[in-house]
Amino acid sequence: MVKFSEEAKSLHASDIREILKVTENPEIISFAGGLPAPELFPIDEMMKVDVEILKKEGRQAVQYSTTEGYVPLRKQIAKRMKTSFHTDCTYEDIIITAGSQQGLSLLGQLFLNEGDIVLVESPTYMGATTAFAVNFPQFVEVETDDKGMVPEALEAAIEKYGDRVRLMYVIPEFQNPTGITWPLERRQAIMDIMNKHDIPIIEDDPYGELRYEGETMPTLKSLDTQGNVIFLGSFSKIFMPGLRIGWMVAAHDILEKAVMLKQTVDLQTSSFAQRQASYYIDMYDLDAHVKQIRDLYGKRRTLMYDSMKKYFPEGVSFTYPEGGLFTWVTLPEGLDAKAMMPEVIEKKVAYVPGGAFYPNGGNANHFRLNYSNMPEDRIVEGIKRLAEVLKEKIGK
Amino acid sequence: MVKFSEEAKSLHASDIREILKVTENPEIISFAGGLPAPELFPIDEMMKVDVEILKKEGRQAVQYSTTEGYVPLRKQIAKRMKTSFHTDCTYEDIIITAGSQQGLSLLGQLFLNEGDIVLVESPTYMGATTAFAVNFPQFVEVETDDKGMVPEALEAAIEKYGDRVRLMYVIPEFQNPTGITWPLERRQAIMDIMNKHDIPIIEDDPYGELRYEGETMPTLKSLDTQGNVIFLGSFSKIFMPGLRIGWMVAAHDILEKAVMLKQTVDLQTSSFAQRQASYYIDMYDLDAHVKQIRDLYGKRRTLMYDSMKKYFPEGVSFTYPEGGLFTWVTLPEGLDAKAMMPEVIEKKVAYVPGGAFYPNGGNANHFRLNYSNMPEDRIVEGIKRLAEVLKEKIGK
Repeated sequence: MVKFSEEAKSLHASDIREILKVTENPEIISFAGGLPAPELFPIDEMMKVDVEILKKEGRQAVQYSTTEGYVPLRKQIAKRMKTSFHTDCTYEDIIITAGSQQGLSLLGQLFLNEGDIVLVESPTYMGATTAFAVNFPQFVEVETDDKGMVPEALEAAIEKYGDRVRLMYVIPEFQNPTGITWPLERRQAIMDIMNKHDIPIIEDDPYGELRYEGETMPTLKSLDTQGNVIFLGSFSKIFMPGLRIGWMVAAHDILEKAVMLKQTVDLQTSSFAQRQASYYIDMYDLDAHVKQIRDLYGKRRTLMYDSMKKYFPEGVSFTYPEGGLFTWVTLPEGLDAKAMMPEVIEKKVAYVPGGAFYPNGGNANHFRLNYSNMPEDRIVEGIKRLAEVLKEKIGK
Repeated sequence: MVKFSEEAKSLHASDIREILKVTENPEIISFAGGLPAPELFPIDEMMKVDVEILKKEGRQAVQYSTTEGYVPLRKQIAKRMKTSFHTDCTYEDIIITAGSQQGLSLLGQLFLNEGDIVLVESPTYMGATTAFAVNFPQFVEVETDDKGMVPEALEAAIEKYGDRVRLMYVIPEFQNPTGITWPLERRQAIMDIMNKHDIPIIEDDPYGELRYEGETMPTLKSLDTQGNVIFLGSFSKIFMPGLRIGWMVAAHDILEKAVMLKQTVDLQTSSFAQRQASYYIDMYDLDAHVKQIRDLYGKRRTLMYDSMKKYFPEGVSFTYPEGGLFTWVTLPEGLDAKAMMPEVIEKKVAYVPGGAFYPNGGNANHFRLNYSNMPEDRIVEGIKRLAEVLKEKIGK
């Protein structure tokens, strides 16, 4: 038997991965994943896009290219950062990544030594904590209420841990897993604190363009006076996840390190896939496409919310997300959503147990629901089935 | 200023990257990169391939998919491992990576703790050593002659360093940078030693199918009795590098860890790009395409070799590669190929100074030449220009 590194030894199959495998059974109404609705993928348009790329650029579109990414795409993203995210930047402030997951992985490596502290919301996105975990940091969950991270708790954590705090990771917009959005005052209060410290802040914003109601909020990046915010964006939820195209907006000293690290990691993101996003934006109307997504997901969000209100028993609460893909369900204390999984799967429905989103454990009485990937009739039916299990549990 | 991790601090812009930037000037005859000849990319065929993928699979081709990779492609690779590499495996022994560079990066993380020893050829591929370097290992360069790594030197290194040796990295076929191929007896002798130890061996083989003469050799993987060899293959040199599709063949316990790590790193390789390789193999004749590449590169290899023989001054020696993309030039002791770069660039020609391929430094009197990316007339002209500089240096 070969000997693995400490890092390799720390890797374990995730619960969620195992759950997602079960939900591949098409009989199961799965609210577990975070998949976009495939019926909206612009497949016919992509046939034209792909041919146009090869006609116009031919060989260059499939040759090696730079680690930073395809310049026309970076320019298009800079423009969208302004129009969609109210954030000023130029293409030189942007690099292309293999989805925002790669951004998370690179940044964990760039900022974390063993034992360093990462401040996160509680709960937080498990894909981020698993990406950071290979560097053996300590996760400090900062108190989080229905308006996001609590400023007083953040201040207390920074005071308590001082220099050991080396990174903050947050999703202020339609958070994964809770669906919560930080209001303007909260963003300003958090940035007032963070602008006084030299702590890099990852603002993960894969869903920012999927707002179904209310007003667009300024990004943390746009409130950042020190160049410490690193914004991660993605085409996965507004275009096509299988292309693996995301981006990172950051100060030049950070981008420079990210590029050097990315070069050792995969040299560059697919030359062709970058052009697929870029040519689509040129040839079609991505904003109109995003509006279609918003219309559909907004409807599904409302339907899931209304169904939960109608069918879930008393004592169960859930969030009302203004955008994004997820809603978060809280059960009475003492119930364990993971332990309930076999009964839930038995009813041919699935969620992700909430405990996985707390890096320090506990909090078993939650689960996450996704509403983007299931057609309307299955949403209602799935919520009914879940309600049956919940009634049995709470009735006892 | 934010504080970077120790890993980030260790990252520095590579010399080669700076050289490659200079060589983007089209006036320069560049033997510096390792780029495939773009004129052979099957662009017309790819238009049909892309449309067929979208017609046949549509949404699934751009949706999230598994970390392990697209099963039909893995099956095609398993078949090619048999026909092209004489190595038996099934698709379950294979995962898809974002080029073999990602394979190197994942394996460095899976096997290396700080201070652990990696055994490498001397010289060795710098893209591998920079990928491993983020884990702070110690590189031990094992004596390497014109037949590859020297078995006695390998045995001595293992005896000297014992348990600290945690990884071996080699390119037995048309090595980068030297172009050297290990003969059969050498492969057997090395594997006789390695089969007695539990040390993982990375066999990096991006050029194996590009043999211009002589017989195909058994891979180390096919001589491996202990399941310790990890074979890395790539479509970059036989198809299109910009798609970023490579593969890893390894024992299941290793693949399992690699998949868990890859999931944190980028979730998966592009669903669409994997299908581009797979559908091309289905719809066209990849072997016939590879033969075209072999014919062209073989001609260029011979032309570069003959030109060096004709024009290079006495005292300069160079390898005769039976395949691959590179030849390796050795100057008289005391000459410094890196220091000569300004004069070389002045003549509008470029190479990669050899020192970068020795992780422990020294050996300034070498450089690497690539012959795959330049048309015939520029190869001759470039070698003439280099010869002028060399004559001046050696004349003095």
